[in-house]
Amino acid sequence: MRVLVLAMLIPALAQAWYYGRPEPNAWTTGGVWPLPWTINYFTGNHSVNPSRFRFQAKQAGCDIIDKAIARYQKLSFPGYNASTYAGDAGTLTSVQIDVTSGCPTGVPSLSMDETYTVSITTPNGIGIIQAKEVWGALRAMETFSHLVYLPKDNVYMVRTANITDGPRFPWRGVMIDSSRHFLPISTLLQNLDVMAQNKMNVFHWHLVDSEAFPYPSLKYPDLTSKGAYSPKHQYSVADVKKVIDYARLRGIRVVAEFDTPGHTGAWGYGIPNLTPKCYQSNGKAGMLPNILDPTVNSTFDFLSGFFAEALALFPDEYMHFGGDEVIDDMNECWYNNPEVRSRMQQLGFGSDTGKLLNYYWARLFDIIDKARAGTKKLVWQEVLDQNVPQQQSIAHVWKGATIQEAYEEMGKVTANGHFAILSSCWYMNYIKYGADWGYVNEDAMRARGMYYQCDPQGFHGTKEQKNLVLGGEAAIWGEFVDGTNLINRLWPRASAVAERLWSDPSQTQSADNAWPRLHEFKCRLIHRGFRMQPVMDPDYCPYEWQDGYQEI
Amino acid sequence: MRVLVLAMLIPALAQAWYYGRPEPNAWTTGGVWPLPWTINYFTGNHSVNPSRFRFQAKQAGCDIIDKAIARYQKLSFPGYNASTYAGDAGTLTSVQIDVTSGCPTGVPSLSMDETYTVSITTPNGIGIIQAKEVWGALRAMETFSHLVYLPKDNVYMVRTANITDGPRFPWRGVMIDSSRHFLPISTLLQNLDVMAQNKMNVFHWHLVDSEAFPYPSLKYPDLTSKGAYSPKHQYSVADVKKVIDYARLRGIRVVAEFDTPGHTGAWGYGIPNLTPKCYQSNGKAGMLPNILDPTVNSTFDFLSGFFAEALALFPDEYMHFGGDEVIDDMNECWYNNPEVRSRMQQLGFGSDTGKLLNYYWARLFDIIDKARAGTKKLVWQEVLDQNVPQQQSIAHVWKGATIQEAYEEMGKVTANGHFAILSSCWYMNYIKYGADWGYVNEDAMRARGMYYQCDPQGFHGTKEQKNLVLGGEAAIWGEFVDGTNLINRLWPRASAVAERLWSDPSQTQSADNAWPRLHEFKCRLIHRGFRMQPVMDPDYCPYEWQDGYQEI
Repeated sequence: MRVLVLAMLIPALAQAWYYGRPEPNAWTTGGVWPLPWTINYFTGNHSVNPSRFRFQAKQAGCDIIDKAIARYQKLSFPGYNASTYAGDAGTLTSVQIDVTSGCPTGVPSLSMDETYTVSITTPNGIGIIQAKEVWGALRAMETFSHLVYLPKDNVYMVRTANITDGPRFPWRGVMIDSSRHFLPISTLLQNLDVMAQNKMNVFHWHLVDSEAFPYPSLKYPDLTSKGAYSPKHQYSVADVKKVIDYARLRGIRVVAEFDTPGHTGAWGYGIPNLTPKCYQSNGKAGMLPNILDPTVNSTFDFLSGFFAEALALFPDEYMHFGGDEVIDDMNECWYNNPEVRSRMQQLGFGSDTGKLLNYYWARLFDIIDKARAGTKKLVWQEVLDQNVPQQQSIAHVWKGATIQEAYEEMGKVTANGHFAILSSCWYMNYIKYGADWGYVNEDAMRARGMYYQCDPQGFHGTKEQKNLVLGGEAAIWGEFVDGTNLINRLWPRASAVAERLWSDPSQTQSADNAWPRLHEFKCRLIHRGFRMQPVMDPDYCPYEWQDGYQEI
Repeated sequence: MRVLVLAMLIPALAQAWYYGRPEPNAWTTGGVWPLPWTINYFTGNHSVNPSRFRFQAKQAGCDIIDKAIARYQKLSFPGYNASTYAGDAGTLTSVQIDVTSGCPTGVPSLSMDETYTVSITTPNGIGIIQAKEVWGALRAMETFSHLVYLPKDNVYMVRTANITDGPRFPWRGVMIDSSRHFLPISTLLQNLDVMAQNKMNVFHWHLVDSEAFPYPSLKYPDLTSKGAYSPKHQYSVADVKKVIDYARLRGIRVVAEFDTPGHTGAWGYGIPNLTPKCYQSNGKAGMLPNILDPTVNSTFDFLSGFFAEALALFPDEYMHFGGDEVIDDMNECWYNNPEVRSRMQQLGFGSDTGKLLNYYWARLFDIIDKARAGTKKLVWQEVLDQNVPQQQSIAHVWKGATIQEAYEEMGKVTANGHFAILSSCWYMNYIKYGADWGYVNEDAMRARGMYYQCDPQGFHGTKEQKNLVLGGEAAIWGEFVDGTNLINRLWPRASAVAERLWSDPSQTQSADNAWPRLHEFKCRLIHRGFRMQPVMDPDYCPYEWQDGYQEI
């Protein structure tokens, strides 16, 4: 058995293609996305007959493993049709799954162990997956499914390889905004499947915002009935539980965001006196109410009830409390509002809205701690930039329009001792023409793009600072995204983020080298039935998207 | 019966919404897109029961009308379910369709008459559609379907209105590129349906290009078998005929483009000596072969055979012969190629590649005239910019990155006496963040965008020049578009182009006024099952896209 070096998997771009583009058929066979930390391919591959091949769990009776086996029995062999399959008997007959620890009773957490090994060797018809926890086994099964390829019609082959792998960062997320446009549950579930296939593990659910409140509060039904766009634009509690469980089975955490005190316009429709009116400095009507009123106790009474309910529904140890973009509202709706300002003075804050904001956060976090002790608090970075009491909050960094600016923000936040999660580089809603996952179209056509290049630990800082970086999130805000375009706008562009957050950075510096592997991965997901858009000039897949259009 | 002015259909934006955005529910009820030239709404609307309502053709037995009736019986009542419908009996029981002329035997042409009237009045339970030709009746049925709305669940209502309408321009097209990425036939058919619902009437099919040759030549099978990406990435003749007939039934012409002499890289794989090698000025290998060789007779022999076949397959009087972007190839593959240059000299052109290019066009157009006399020739503008013999060719204007530059190109082309079709403003493949159908995101957030504003007759010129403008085309080049994202990337952005090419410009100057009507239209198409992406900040529809995702 001869060990092939990784580089041999990546085909050289054999000739110049038009305008320096990669060739349309530049793809790997049996490449893995995101790139494992150690992968050794061998010569001599196995054939697999999907009708005979089986995953076998050494430890029986764990729903997470059992359901994953059912999924990967399908996902590993896209296009398989038992009635037409004409392959041979298959020289790989099974993959054994060996998990050391037991079956988790709850949802995955930040400390879940996702490391694993996969061994598919030449003479042996039985592959081996080993993992400490089920979460590693899930990642391993995904990796195994990438080793399978179709060199020609109807013969599934699997690359022989030894793989030792685990994530670089524990927090690898996608943020989705279900407020600006309502997103059907089926779109969220589909996205969870694509996330799992990218080994991403946090669904950050930006549930509500200024425009709409689709989150279902049973305790405050008016919040939903008056805050949602319409009765058709609301989730049920069963919907939310379905998302959490669907995510759990795929090793994905659901971190809910309830953004306060700003971005709360839609909260105010159902709760009296929650969001005060706003005024321009000349006293005329200003922007629409969009910030909570911390000068009345009824606000905190409401928040106590609201978050007790929300923290009981979302089991993750972490919750996101927002806190972004409040300056204009603090001015128009607190400072310029005579009643709020009068109460500010009675509370002893004079006319200092900053003090009122600090007061808000201190009281909110007290409420959270009482509602569910130990809750970890994630906030958009400016909450911590403003020196609000930290209480071990995690800074979600979103500022910085360039990689350099993003790095400066990461440096600042970690220098202040905060844990950090990076999103600045990865606002996937900001679309532009071109292969923006890895390149930008400048005069030099192949300049490096932000998504694949940006590194959460790329900033200048001490080792201690770097250790405060938990990972990052691709964010797709909802102004121009709904169920019609979320999947194919986000993917496979966000796959660049997935690789940056999972893989060894020293092995994943080059978008040119990554493309053939990303290309195979994108084609694999198309073949599995996911709407992956083209992201790299002319290309094609062995199996193209089936439109399924019913002629009228 | 009281006549309401049009303005009453357009709801005032009742209050400031966040950041000056339109309200998410700013939509019309029974608005028509694109806007008819004359539309008078009346008070008192009809209810309609889809199970009883019928279109009735006065002239029986025309397939175009009969099949349109079957379509619009469905399209007019999206979401209708006979088993659950709980509406009343319906006070509008039928719409009569009265076409003066007979049933056309062939495909639609540039001179087809698309004018029509629709009359839906209050006391009368029978609506009237009148048109000179069936093409006008198709447009009228689409218009009628826009008058239908659902004020609440399960009661279809139809606005009472009198409409007199017809297109501003006879050429209202969408250009689609099936070379850079292969597009399944079902995607093309779906797009034809969306085009028809936008009253667009030309499908410009950019079939082949440098990268791939999916067009099926039976006479030169190697052209397809070697030029297509793979056997899966080819059309059959039956596919092409299906597209042409599907388009015919919707009043849409299919204008095929075979782009020569440049952009022909994929032609060269199957035909020996067709595309000569290219060299840098230092004699080293240059770009990939991508231009035909006009110095050998075999090229013209091939073109004679090729176009005889293509002109027999595509019945439209017009064909597009390309001609764009040849300068670099003329230099590298003609001038720098010693063999080509030697033959140029033998032909008496010295080293003047411009003369060779003129020679190419003269011979090609002779071939076309012999293959099918009377064929009208469309070319990208530079063919005519270069003073190639016109032979009544039509200039397809694509240059100009701003409206002003596009206008300058239109002025120049028409000053030279050429007919013109505009696409410069409407390269829909160039995506950017924001509501680009009607606005651009500048510091002032609601600056006017190119698509809705750009007018094919907006240039400075004489009346005679303006009369040379046939219309325009929205173009979506295929570098980053395939079956996964064509429909929702193109639409409803291209609906802005549809209105500009159909409607009275004096009534359609304001994107602000257009939005509520476009919003209703977009929601209507979503309800009909078409994947229309959000194009205007936060919004929602009465009926959202149904994802249909099968959980795995």
